[in-house]
Amino acid sequence: MEPVRVSSEALLRLVQALFEHEGLSPEDAATIARVQVEADLRGMHSHGTRAVPTYLERVRRGIINPRPAIRVTDLGIAALVDGDAGPGQVVAVRAMEECIARARRYRIGLALARRSNHFGAAGFYAGMAVAHDLIGIVTTNGNLVLAPWGGLTPTVGNNPLAIGVPAGVEPPLLLDIATSVVAGGKIDLLAAEGGRLPPGWWLDARGQPARDVAEALAGLGIPLGAPAAGHKGFGLALALEALAGVLSGARYGRQHTVEVESGPVPWDEGHFFLAIDPALAMPLGTFKARMDQLIREVRASQPIPGGAPIHAPGELALQRREQALREGILLPGSVYRALCACARERGLDGLDPRIERDNSPPA
Amino acid sequence: MEPVRVSSEALLRLVQALFEHEGLSPEDAATIARVQVEADLRGMHSHGTRAVPTYLERVRRGIINPRPAIRVTDLGIAALVDGDAGPGQVVAVRAMEECIARARRYRIGLALARRSNHFGAAGFYAGMAVAHDLIGIVTTNGNLVLAPWGGLTPTVGNNPLAIGVPAGVEPPLLLDIATSVVAGGKIDLLAAEGGRLPPGWWLDARGQPARDVAEALAGLGIPLGAPAAGHKGFGLALALEALAGVLSGARYGRQHTVEVESGPVPWDEGHFFLAIDPALAMPLGTFKARMDQLIREVRASQPIPGGAPIHAPGELALQRREQALREGILLPGSVYRALCACARERGLDGLDPRIERDNSPPA
Repeated sequence: MEPVRVSSEALLRLVQALFEHEGLSPEDAATIARVQVEADLRGMHSHGTRAVPTYLERVRRGIINPRPAIRVTDLGIAALVDGDAGPGQVVAVRAMEECIARARRYRIGLALARRSNHFGAAGFYAGMAVAHDLIGIVTTNGNLVLAPWGGLTPTVGNNPLAIGVPAGVEPPLLLDIATSVVAGGKIDLLAAEGGRLPPGWWLDARGQPARDVAEALAGLGIPLGAPAAGHKGFGLALALEALAGVLSGARYGRQHTVEVESGPVPWDEGHFFLAIDPALAMPLGTFKARMDQLIREVRASQPIPGGAPIHAPGELALQRREQALREGILLPGSVYRALCACARERGLDGLDPRIERDNSPPA
Repeated sequence: MEPVRVSSEALLRLVQALFEHEGLSPEDAATIARVQVEADLRGMHSHGTRAVPTYLERVRRGIINPRPAIRVTDLGIAALVDGDAGPGQVVAVRAMEECIARARRYRIGLALARRSNHFGAAGFYAGMAVAHDLIGIVTTNGNLVLAPWGGLTPTVGNNPLAIGVPAGVEPPLLLDIATSVVAGGKIDLLAAEGGRLPPGWWLDARGQPARDVAEALAGLGIPLGAPAAGHKGFGLALALEALAGVLSGARYGRQHTVEVESGPVPWDEGHFFLAIDPALAMPLGTFKARMDQLIREVRASQPIPGGAPIHAPGELALQRREQALREGILLPGSVYRALCACARERGLDGLDPRIERDNSPPA
């Protein structure tokens, strides 16, 4: 589907208006908009406003509570956050704020959230820590995507791991990876766009390589390390499930389901947030200069002739972000249409595209 | 090469004697023996006593200081450990003890070690936290194994990530993975044993799949997620380099070299140890029962017909350990011979095999 260029401001306004229409406070609606549009700005359309229609539907179904009373239990160095089934973005931003406040006071901070929902891209929250000159480590559990290596039963999410590390003059290191080879949102985006499934992206329901998007939608993620060492990616997802699900007190493992909409209400997703102040070990300026050097070493690597372009984690996304702020976000056509349909359905103004029928491919 | 069955007690005694002969204190020699033999007990021969001859040689070359004066700077919740170029195992055990003591007092503990050496298997130290009913998270940097995805210049180690989580009646979850598809020690073991390189294990020096062990020894590791998403495994290794190398104050990135022996003296490797008390979030018994359930769900997965056997991370290693304690360790023949040669060279008694010419394959 042809991508459509829209301004990030218009996208933010529309997403906020949609959630306000569903009964969220302006502040909470703005938080969701900020988190999801940030992913689109970075070219991560699988984790951006693509999810907004799904979230809106979840509010209507009672999976997401539009007016949560979030409760924080203060344990000094750690905070336990009860999300009251609120939007994952709202719960997670609050939890990361609690985590950051503790890291600033105690040099390390931990926040565990339960009774939450899908929170968008984990990297957003690691980035919040980085903006405070802290190292941020974030994970979450979610719907079931991965079977144990050698197995067929979906047992844990392809739980993401985000690690953000501040740098000096170089862009910060911002890793945000699913524990499957490809994030699930990319399959959903392919399905909506009518694209072809690249080889090596997903498994079918029998644990064999999926040949098309339909097989993938009914199948399983491929854990990192497969085929020689698929136990590594599954094992990492399982360990992250222990941190985000078991430790947080949320539902975990097969207490969740493959499809959120067929699962328990409230969904009760768990998140894990850790922040470490690098200034505990050395002057902050020294740490940042050391990170700058590491990032430059990545960039200075001799390239493989004809190989993939070399970037430090988060660097390409930052370049895309700057371009999108200047020129507008090149939104996948399916996302644009779905958002406009949500707006029409609610009698709201849709998105006014900056440039119709832009033929350049999505970033 | 035919494996040889030896008792773990005899192996412990020999390794301790070898390091005492090189001038280490009996306590420090016993620590190295304990860490390395533990890996052999678990069937991880790539990370076991295979490395002992290399470590002995590093003591002789001045890379490893046999009599380190380890210094600990106490920052309350965190400890900064200066290893004085001592054996990695000795520095890491001390650092993890400091980390555990802090987690017991503050519910979270961090220890950062610098001026250290190769510490064996990261999982050993995560297991120390688990033995104290704590969650342990451990990583290290090391010699350069991974190039940026799309590149040819070795820039960081295939830095391991170990996560240990206590359970109740089930074996604890103990993840210990390199960020490459296969750990480097497995290539070295293949070389010593004269085995064939399985496909998908390693790259050659041009970034193409290595066809044999010789090409692999001169080549690069394959990051987790390759070929569709090799940037994920490299990015994870880079983030772990930031934690273990940049944050610890150790040498990092290309300050290290591909081969330790050709690198700076002292080598100055960095480690990262984090421990979290799960009892901060709920009664310990509740947490353990929740972990038991997650582990049982992994085991209960429907298997793929003809697929790999299903295990929770650490479960198979624990079964091997129990068998090896009963029946002796089935040591790769190359490891057995190299240890006996080290003993002969020093006028020490070698290993007395329990069963000569055992034909069963190594676990």
